[in-house]
Amino acid sequence: MSVNLPKGTRDLLPAQMKLRLEVIGQVREVFTRYGFEPLETPAFERIETLMGKYGEEGDKLIYRILRRGEGGERGESDLALRYDLTVPLARVVAMHQDLPMPFKRYQIQPVWRAERPQKGRFREFYQCDVDTVGSAERTADAECVAVVHDSLRALAFPEFTIRLNHRQVLRAIAEAAGAADRETSVLIAVDKLDKIGWEGVDAELTERGISADSIARLHELLAVSGDAAFAHLDARLPERGREGLVELQRVLEYALALGVDERFVRFDPKLARGLDYYTGPVFETVLPPPNVGSVSGGGRYDGLIGMFSEKRSLPAVGVSLGLERLIVLLEERGDAAKSGPTSVFVTVFNEELRTTSLRAAGLFRQAGLTTRVSLDAGAKLGKQLKQADAVGARYAVVIGPDEAEQGVVTLKDLRAGTQRTLPLLEAVGAVR
Amino acid sequence: MSVNLPKGTRDLLPAQMKLRLEVIGQVREVFTRYGFEPLETPAFERIETLMGKYGEEGDKLIYRILRRGEGGERGESDLALRYDLTVPLARVVAMHQDLPMPFKRYQIQPVWRAERPQKGRFREFYQCDVDTVGSAERTADAECVAVVHDSLRALAFPEFTIRLNHRQVLRAIAEAAGAADRETSVLIAVDKLDKIGWEGVDAELTERGISADSIARLHELLAVSGDAAFAHLDARLPERGREGLVELQRVLEYALALGVDERFVRFDPKLARGLDYYTGPVFETVLPPPNVGSVSGGGRYDGLIGMFSEKRSLPAVGVSLGLERLIVLLEERGDAAKSGPTSVFVTVFNEELRTTSLRAAGLFRQAGLTTRVSLDAGAKLGKQLKQADAVGARYAVVIGPDEAEQGVVTLKDLRAGTQRTLPLLEAVGAVR
Repeated sequence: MSVNLPKGTRDLLPAQMKLRLEVIGQVREVFTRYGFEPLETPAFERIETLMGKYGEEGDKLIYRILRRGEGGERGESDLALRYDLTVPLARVVAMHQDLPMPFKRYQIQPVWRAERPQKGRFREFYQCDVDTVGSAERTADAECVAVVHDSLRALAFPEFTIRLNHRQVLRAIAEAAGAADRETSVLIAVDKLDKIGWEGVDAELTERGISADSIARLHELLAVSGDAAFAHLDARLPERGREGLVELQRVLEYALALGVDERFVRFDPKLARGLDYYTGPVFETVLPPPNVGSVSGGGRYDGLIGMFSEKRSLPAVGVSLGLERLIVLLEERGDAAKSGPTSVFVTVFNEELRTTSLRAAGLFRQAGLTTRVSLDAGAKLGKQLKQADAVGARYAVVIGPDEAEQGVVTLKDLRAGTQRTLPLLEAVGAVR
Repeated sequence: MSVNLPKGTRDLLPAQMKLRLEVIGQVREVFTRYGFEPLETPAFERIETLMGKYGEEGDKLIYRILRRGEGGERGESDLALRYDLTVPLARVVAMHQDLPMPFKRYQIQPVWRAERPQKGRFREFYQCDVDTVGSAERTADAECVAVVHDSLRALAFPEFTIRLNHRQVLRAIAEAAGAADRETSVLIAVDKLDKIGWEGVDAELTERGISADSIARLHELLAVSGDAAFAHLDARLPERGREGLVELQRVLEYALALGVDERFVRFDPKLARGLDYYTGPVFETVLPPPNVGSVSGGGRYDGLIGMFSEKRSLPAVGVSLGLERLIVLLEERGDAAKSGPTSVFVTVFNEELRTTSLRAAGLFRQAGLTTRVSLDAGAKLGKQLKQADAVGARYAVVIGPDEAEQGVVTLKDLRAGTQRTLPLLEAVGAVR
């Protein structure tokens, strides 16, 4: 009988799961400190909730569920699997009009996309989003930056850069370059700077019909980044762009006040972030080479959350942590779950002494220690100790007839290769 | 624009989610102590993995995903949503033949069933399973009992009964009653004793063609439960049943040795647990009236895990915690999440003092405190303090021009209605 997983999916076995649970626990703690609260939504939504929200290409990648009853036999579908966490958030906000505003929520759940499977790319993957709905204040934007900063620090990433930019600054740059009518083309090309360099971007801009003069002006506008870029652009951008610069400066100032280390954040006018729906500040986090690609991205999107309620257009800002990528990076770095495997393995000497061993296991567990008891009581002690090794136990406990009679146990330190005999409660204390 | 959830689903809003995360955290901790390790599997499986595993009725409740490309337009389906956690476990064991045995895993994930929606019944709900695969030892069965016991104690349920029985004992009871050929009918009827009493069961047995003589013998066989039932049935059951009694006695003995309080566990020969696939001990946990229905169930099922691998029939025993029911009971009991809402709300006096307030918020957060900062800096202080109340904050922090000049903050205890002015770091210390 052949048995297999669906293409593009995977099982998360214990070693992977333990690290994942720890990472999720750590970012959850950061989110909680900032007053973001947990939300979960169903795996599937009504199909009309999802369709048309992700562009034509996105719609094609949505998993549709067969309608039950009438129509199903013709391939009709009334439900579809969650494709991201933002549209469900918009639906939640539209349906629960009594949610206290501003609504600060985080959501960590899988999403499903029928993309062509690639190495390291899955059709089911976790997203991890933090959003503040109902506040237009730049403090909320700065909190998004700070949450990313604190999360990556909590996960012990020693170096990263949170790049900041602003939709209005980008628009004004296109305008100042004399390509206001080709703004999208300019953004799409500039967004690839990291990957293909100026040479590639110039070729693409030319191909997209941007004049040599505009390209030269773009080079000049984007020549400076970091703090100096504020003055550089302030002297060159039209009014709207200068407003964006002021807002961005505020976000930066607030983020630093919230505790973000200035080494980890910088204004980068070349950050384009393709998505159409951003309306204000945008952010993206990159790690130093060779780790290309972003580990978090977000921004302000004041138009989106109101999509399901005509009366209610709500300002919103959010950021997404690239949980799957972060976990892969931690695995590559050699991080294993700190919780580790079994602490104590209690052997069973023989049938008569089984309950004695079980009682010992019970005490180790009551002390909070991860404890396995032999499930192969008939096996020789040597085999049981091998089993203890196999499950990664640090200590093994042996209770033979002599130990039982004297009310003691033999505690073997499997790493040090030493052992000693002592009363059970002392052994529990020693392991703790 | 009408917007809604799919029928039978729900959003888990922050208050519900916080309690849920705590409950999951608590049972996870118990599972970990016993050496059970986390596993997650994809939300959908290949359709042939699931179909035919849950009986005809079960198959109908499986959500099928429309095939992509060829065949989808005719309503063909190649994937289906997870219906339980046991079949995925069997698939995992068949596919990962290098898993160290015995394999002790827990899995806490949603499953989907297209049942007719009812009050309190959802089409998406979490299951929470603990299983040991690869050991036929009764210690493994006893650990399942102990894990349920410890979990319910950790969740502070003061009273519950873990009922134990054994498949072979049940079979022998039917045999001793002279209804060996109607075993299933007998089990189905007896299983309803709690709900419909003997009168109802007798009527059903009669209807199912069980003779009055057999019914009378059933009454006599099932008249005793608890420890006395061992002797009562030992004198009345054929060999096979007596073997079951011995095994059951061992499971009980081992469970007590592991630390299970004897008040919470009892042999109950009337426990039938309908499912066909159990082969040995079975368990079910009930709460005292008025809470009818079980909050956990399980047993040994030595035939099932090998379903996907011809060569590999593996003994297995497991138990499922009724997570959704437990959460409802905790909510009814009035349990709110212990983590509580916001601890500190930092107001923003005016635009000039905003960064001062943000710095203060940063320090409270660094101290691990759940801290919100006003996202409505333009509002009067009174309105901001109302906001602090609305998010459930225990403390509010005010930094006006006087405080800022003197390097202090005013800390308001919103519950006590008191306030004092002190240096920021002392305020952080005071709240901690």
